[in-house]
Amino acid sequence: MSKQKTWSDRFESALNPAIAIFNASIGFDIELIEYDITGSIAHAKMLAKTKIISDAEAQQLESGLSQIRTEYQQGNFNPGIEAEDVHFAVEKRLIEIVGDVGKKLHTARSRNDQVGTDIRLYLRAEIREIQQYLRKFQSALLTHSEQHVETLIPGYTHLQRAQPLSLAHHLLAYFQMTQRDWERLEDVYKRTNISPLGCGALAGTTFPIDRAYSAELLGFDNIYQNSLDGVSDRDFAIEFLCAASLIMVHLSRLSEEMILWASQEFSFITLKDTCATGSSIMPQKKNPDIPELVRGKTGRVFGHLQGLLVIMKGLPLAYNKDLQEDKEGIFDAVKTVKACLEAMTILLNEGIEFKTARLSQAVAEDFSNATDVADYLAGKDVPFREAYNLVGKVVKTSLAAGKLLKDLTLEEWQQLHPAFEADIYEAIAPKQVVSARNSYGGTGFDQVRQAISQAKSLLNT
Amino acid sequence: MSKQKTWSDRFESALNPAIAIFNASIGFDIELIEYDITGSIAHAKMLAKTKIISDAEAQQLESGLSQIRTEYQQGNFNPGIEAEDVHFAVEKRLIEIVGDVGKKLHTARSRNDQVGTDIRLYLRAEIREIQQYLRKFQSALLTHSEQHVETLIPGYTHLQRAQPLSLAHHLLAYFQMTQRDWERLEDVYKRTNISPLGCGALAGTTFPIDRAYSAELLGFDNIYQNSLDGVSDRDFAIEFLCAASLIMVHLSRLSEEMILWASQEFSFITLKDTCATGSSIMPQKKNPDIPELVRGKTGRVFGHLQGLLVIMKGLPLAYNKDLQEDKEGIFDAVKTVKACLEAMTILLNEGIEFKTARLSQAVAEDFSNATDVADYLAGKDVPFREAYNLVGKVVKTSLAAGKLLKDLTLEEWQQLHPAFEADIYEAIAPKQVVSARNSYGGTGFDQVRQAISQAKSLLNT
Amino acid sequence: MSKQKTWSDRFESALNPAIAIFNASIGFDIELIEYDITGSIAHAKMLAKTKIISDAEAQQLESGLSQIRTEYQQGNFNPGIEAEDVHFAVEKRLIEIVGDVGKKLHTARSRNDQVGTDIRLYLRAEIREIQQYLRKFQSALLTHSEQHVETLIPGYTHLQRAQPLSLAHHLLAYFQMTQRDWERLEDVYKRTNISPLGCGALAGTTFPIDRAYSAELLGFDNIYQNSLDGVSDRDFAIEFLCAASLIMVHLSRLSEEMILWASQEFSFITLKDTCATGSSIMPQKKNPDIPELVRGKTGRVFGHLQGLLVIMKGLPLAYNKDLQEDKEGIFDAVKTVKACLEAMTILLNEGIEFKTARLSQAVAEDFSNATDVADYLAGKDVPFREAYNLVGKVVKTSLAAGKLLKDLTLEEWQQLHPAFEADIYEAIAPKQVVSARNSYGGTGFDQVRQAISQAKSLLNT
Amino acid sequence: MSKQKTWSDRFESALNPAIAIFNASIGFDIELIEYDITGSIAHAKMLAKTKIISDAEAQQLESGLSQIRTEYQQGNFNPGIEAEDVHFAVEKRLIEIVGDVGKKLHTARSRNDQVGTDIRLYLRAEIREIQQYLRKFQSALLTHSEQHVETLIPGYTHLQRAQPLSLAHHLLAYFQMTQRDWERLEDVYKRTNISPLGCGALAGTTFPIDRAYSAELLGFDNIYQNSLDGVSDRDFAIEFLCAASLIMVHLSRLSEEMILWASQEFSFITLKDTCATGSSIMPQKKNPDIPELVRGKTGRVFGHLQGLLVIMKGLPLAYNKDLQEDKEGIFDAVKTVKACLEAMTILLNEGIEFKTARLSQAVAEDFSNATDVADYLAGKDVPFREAYNLVGKVVKTSLAAGKLLKDLTLEEWQQLHPAFEADIYEAIAPKQVVSARNSYGGTGFDQVRQAISQAKSLLNT
Repeated sequence: MSKQKTWSDRFESALNPAIAIFNASIGFDIELIEYDITGSIAHAKMLAKTKIISDAEAQQLESGLSQIRTEYQQGNFNPGIEAEDVHFAVEKRLIEIVGDVGKKLHTARSRNDQVGTDIRLYLRAEIREIQQYLRKFQSALLTHSEQHVETLIPGYTHLQRAQPLSLAHHLLAYFQMTQRDWERLEDVYKRTNISPLGCGALAGTTFPIDRAYSAELLGFDNIYQNSLDGVSDRDFAIEFLCAASLIMVHLSRLSEEMILWASQEFSFITLKDTCATGSSIMPQKKNPDIPELVRGKTGRVFGHLQGLLVIMKGLPLAYNKDLQEDKEGIFDAVKTVKACLEAMTILLNEGIEFKTARLSQAVAEDFSNATDVADYLAGKDVPFREAYNLVGKVVKTSLAAGKLLKDLTLEEWQQLHPAFEADIYEAIAPKQVVSARNSYGGTGFDQVRQAISQAKSLLNT
Repeated sequence: MSKQKTWSDRFESALNPAIAIFNASIGFDIELIEYDITGSIAHAKMLAKTKIISDAEAQQLESGLSQIRTEYQQGNFNPGIEAEDVHFAVEKRLIEIVGDVGKKLHTARSRNDQVGTDIRLYLRAEIREIQQYLRKFQSALLTHSEQHVETLIPGYTHLQRAQPLSLAHHLLAYFQMTQRDWERLEDVYKRTNISPLGCGALAGTTFPIDRAYSAELLGFDNIYQNSLDGVSDRDFAIEFLCAASLIMVHLSRLSEEMILWASQEFSFITLKDTCATGSSIMPQKKNPDIPELVRGKTGRVFGHLQGLLVIMKGLPLAYNKDLQEDKEGIFDAVKTVKACLEAMTILLNEGIEFKTARLSQAVAEDFSNATDVADYLAGKDVPFREAYNLVGKVVKTSLAAGKLLKDLTLEEWQQLHPAFEADIYEAIAPKQVVSARNSYGGTGFDQVRQAISQAKSLLNT
Repeated sequence: MSKQKTWSDRFESALNPAIAIFNASIGFDIELIEYDITGSIAHAKMLAKTKIISDAEAQQLESGLSQIRTEYQQGNFNPGIEAEDVHFAVEKRLIEIVGDVGKKLHTARSRNDQVGTDIRLYLRAEIREIQQYLRKFQSALLTHSEQHVETLIPGYTHLQRAQPLSLAHHLLAYFQMTQRDWERLEDVYKRTNISPLGCGALAGTTFPIDRAYSAELLGFDNIYQNSLDGVSDRDFAIEFLCAASLIMVHLSRLSEEMILWASQEFSFITLKDTCATGSSIMPQKKNPDIPELVRGKTGRVFGHLQGLLVIMKGLPLAYNKDLQEDKEGIFDAVKTVKACLEAMTILLNEGIEFKTARLSQAVAEDFSNATDVADYLAGKDVPFREAYNLVGKVVKTSLAAGKLLKDLTLEEWQQLHPAFEADIYEAIAPKQVVSARNSYGGTGFDQVRQAISQAKSLLNT
Repeated sequence: MSKQKTWSDRFESALNPAIAIFNASIGFDIELIEYDITGSIAHAKMLAKTKIISDAEAQQLESGLSQIRTEYQQGNFNPGIEAEDVHFAVEKRLIEIVGDVGKKLHTARSRNDQVGTDIRLYLRAEIREIQQYLRKFQSALLTHSEQHVETLIPGYTHLQRAQPLSLAHHLLAYFQMTQRDWERLEDVYKRTNISPLGCGALAGTTFPIDRAYSAELLGFDNIYQNSLDGVSDRDFAIEFLCAASLIMVHLSRLSEEMILWASQEFSFITLKDTCATGSSIMPQKKNPDIPELVRGKTGRVFGHLQGLLVIMKGLPLAYNKDLQEDKEGIFDAVKTVKACLEAMTILLNEGIEFKTARLSQAVAEDFSNATDVADYLAGKDVPFREAYNLVGKVVKTSLAAGKLLKDLTLEEWQQLHPAFEADIYEAIAPKQVVSARNSYGGTGFDQVRQAISQAKSLLNT
């Protein structure tokens, strides 16, 4: 490698070639190139507005930068390792294109505030994209929910049948989770969309720049109030990775459920061929690879969160090279979250079918209506804890006798407690059991219909 | 251990004693007892308001619950392992105190929504406390900042001297970080202060409860809109642990700097005896144990964040016993963050003294004014990248000659470039160098004074 | 708090009381007291052997230290926060008991090598304990395995029925995992059982000590060869936490399976009352709290591993106070792993019962013998990939017709491929299917019996 | 995308194209292709040896597989997304090349044991490579150590000057750490180099295979004894990531020290141009990017460890698609560790120079000989704790008077304690102070020379 002087004449020899490769970030930060160009154009305009350079110079710079953007988009700009990073690559090419005026672009700026600008422009755009993916996922949930308000499904705690549910209610729980994800991203956006441009290397600059102007050109809502903080802050990236991790928590929970539902034992859903895979050796297999893979990818996003926290721990102010390591984790988390949301949306939209017959049979054959017996008694003024103990006893006897609660005679009920009347049978019928849980946010059909209606309004705004 | 039936008569035998110990959470969830009582009183009042129980019954329940609170505060309520958890412990004692009416308290409620209520009441209170600790820490930073606007300190990137700074500007970077921490906690609070009470075990309840009323009594801003989500959501706890991790990132960075500053090599601060410790063997030692310990404690908070993420990964809906493991990590993170903020505040308030003579000498003896020479030339229309290269050359020659930039003669400057004039000497004097970085958010004294004034307003609101 | 001078007269004022509390480790390192005393006795004997102190002095020190051990064991030694840590607490009490000679104990030693010695003595003992717990767990697995060699259970990949298995074979997979855990702990032990005693604060000592002798007295297998490394190494602790994390991975996998097996859908096991818990509201519930809790506790152990890695990252040599934070994570991981192994052992021993009727029915009613049809053809020289495709076709047709493979007529088989003969029916009978997988390490009954026999030998050595 | 049937005729429709992309691993597992081919050749030979296929068929398979290897090495084999994974890609190409006999290769094998074989072959090779990198790094440490046995450097605890050291002793601490890393990798290798080939999908196979033979052909030391364990075990990968994390801990500690040493405040080393970088704006800067980047990369390796632990948590047996996610983290950790070891080796070999004059001046101007005064007195039978307190007092007085210990008159010494004699001056001279710490493993020059000699033997074996 020939001598590559990306920095000052203080240096006499070029980098050791292996070190140059180790040090370079161009291999991955090229992903930021369009944001880098956008940022540089705004910087150039600001330099002109404040008379640090002339309007003509600014126009030359902008035109050169736009040309690089076009070259890149057409696949004709492919800087190698000797460019060190995307910022130098662009600056060098710019000087080739526009000549000496290109050397003025970096006035009143440092790579430290420049890369901070780039990464924020990138991340705020991706946050908006992820929010769109969340909306599509919610929409898929909603489609199923509308079809399945009165489809019953066993509800579980501890993976034991607990109380039957409206299938729509179950799916809408994920609507709520991803709604929080959407809102959380709003907060992350708020702390991401702040301009560090003009913070310089660490201390601001001696030039009479106008940070508010470049921030406005770039659509930033705010600007960093302390230059040291501006160049060394990566809170927003960590916060994003935490929000991304939570999205993955939610997707991993749904994935786990889909894997269960697709098992022969549960048989709550059928997997369609377009979203399932086979085995290389067992011809009968149809595997839920998509949710498994989503569940697995949860690990890598958690890992990126942890990785960036580790990077930031104990770093003295201001910029340190360690920060170069922030990017790949963020890029991969962005891609992973988008890919997982998309895959799960497709799975919901075309990859699964609920087996409603099996589901309605399931809820009829268990003791998940036992709470309703206790509630029935409590409603007749038997203290709840007492009613609960009585019902525990009936369950035990019935289990031993191989009966369900609906199989008990009225006489047997009344022997248990005189408060029982003929309406006990209706009270414990699955539909009624679900329908009766009509407290706010409960699984009662009225509640569910209302929830669907609210969800629809939300998506339509 | 005698047979302990905390649940229904379905069970014939008591737990294996070792399993009972393994299973019980009373050893740590007793920390929630006051919140549990508060929540139960609100629940009782709601039951009365909705006529599920009578007013007289509600009053009996409230009086019994208040008595337990008093007993606990006076050290007279110490439930053992047989109580399983704080909820059963309180319910059992309540029945002892008020008799059969105590058995009505659990009507229309489950431990699942109950513990969710408790942990949110706990965490929202602690968030407010931590915000207070943040304010005290900021106040300590501000006190130093007011004293040190014109104290200069070397500014670093890559731990290499970069450009000199106002010491106040350096400290105010931490003001900004902790201000973000404060605001981030506001967002966490918003997603924490939501009532799950009335979500029941998972599906809501058949009783005509009024969730809005109990939420209002408890000061919740909102209520969960889906019962399954309400009992299985721990997003807020993870979000809190992320916010706590970020606080620790910031404190660990300041800690690192204090450790550096207290070293003989830097000698920027003196540690006072009240906040430093010695060695068991080396009599001359005075160690910065406080910041070291804060830096170390960063690891445990990151660990708690990771731990809870792992717990939540892939859990099917709704409540699973795994969630019992959420508490200790949160409790420890809360205690750690408060203790670290307090310790660092004390350290700032009474444990360190800046060595101003040493600091002003430091900034005079390096090349951290080299950018100013480049800026000087760029201000005279030499393209920045060219100016930068020229200065790189001077630095190299000067280093070789054992000179600083201020030692160059005007002739030498002009040989370098004809644009230099006598005012170059002033332009590179440390005070001027700092003062001139007067861009918004920069280290220029005017900027710093303005930042201090804004910070003071913020603390006074 | 009165002035507490645990260190030299260089210090004029005592610690700020809040800082003293923050700084003190006595609250948790008291757990190491017996190891601290053991270490000090060995140190005293070494000092006497090398004539640094007299034999009589060494005896006084040993007698005083033994007295402290007795006081502690009897609950009469309870040092407060003013003792700072267990080392000072013991030294101070020793001087109270034996007078001025107590001041000689710390000759040629520092707290840095002392605490390193203590923590290694602690951990090596706990590693041996955990290995015992692993053996008991393996023994419980083995008991079930011996009973269930010919009990069939569906085998899964992707949680889809794949091929039927001997239940013993399934359980023995966990035997292998925990066998690796046991062996891994041997390796950790090897790198834990190395003496840092005599490394001093960081540089060794000017006294003519005999490190080999004190190491021998303490049962160390080796001694650190570099004093700086000796006082700052915590690799062994991280390695232990990784081994502990892997134990938790294995237990969490078995836990997940037990939770599935106990579900109504699987119904492969019955949970006994002594190891299951109920619901506060749903009287019919019987929950697998033990495996759920074990699965949840996995998170905290992973968190401790991550926490200690974070602590060690980027620490300059040699000892730093951050290292004080190593202990609580290790202590908690040790307790958690032991408690989880014990709980799972009890669960296996007395908490579950396999439902063999249900299991044998399960394997008869699926397509998990499809591979055997392909193998049957491949055995008759049909290329495997072709055979596999043929069988895929039959499965599809059969599924559509609501038939199983055993329901096909010989004619139907032969239409599919002329190579089929009457022995196909035997080839696909569940018992035969399992029995025929007799490759080394396979689920064939002969293989399983051999594996059991090897496992028994291992446990008996 | 046209219909791609990589699996059985049970499937009617092809994957949704977006799902196919999401599902495919060919984008990264192509890295395993040579190991996959090697494994398949051994499998084919085993099939022939056991007469499952003929010798002629085996030769055809081997020849076809070798051709694919050549095609790949020459850049002519570039399977696209439709190949799903490297295993199918190779099998499909094989059938193209050798025709129907290619369909026999997968007899008695599954992708589950196949991929397990590939990843172990890959990792064991990389472990050996990393061990070579460790040796080169140790060799670089040793070269400096030999030159600097009698070069003194301040030794620190708490980053406070503690006791002076031989620079070689300091560097050899890292030799010890990386020696442990090397040995730890031996243990990981032991648990990696075990053959899962022949475990089949999960249950073994009905064919009369010879697992020992294929294992022997592939150089495995052992074979998995339980087929379920064989296909679902990733312990070795986690153990590797833990070993990799520890290497990064060690490199991050040395990096931190190098960053400190290169600061103007310490000035213990000079960075050479070939291994340092500049600033885009500050012409005087020379930054220690290499160690900063190494320190930063520590985070990503920790993240991969955490990620894989998360993936494995709670997975039921046997293979699950989640395991596909193990690869990228391992690949990246391998590359990162190798790159960091190489970069640090280059840095040691040609990138730094110790400033010996500055170092020898440093140790002469502090109180790091204070322990030696205490030891001096303790050697004259003053109890250590008393001596220590006396010296603390002198340090305080001297600090106040602006003197060092060497500046005290004999009279002053004797006023302090009558035991002082004229030899005190020699006892506290830096060289003597270091030389006298001649306990085993201490910094005394004799010890250090012995350590160097042992280290050299180790490298030469």
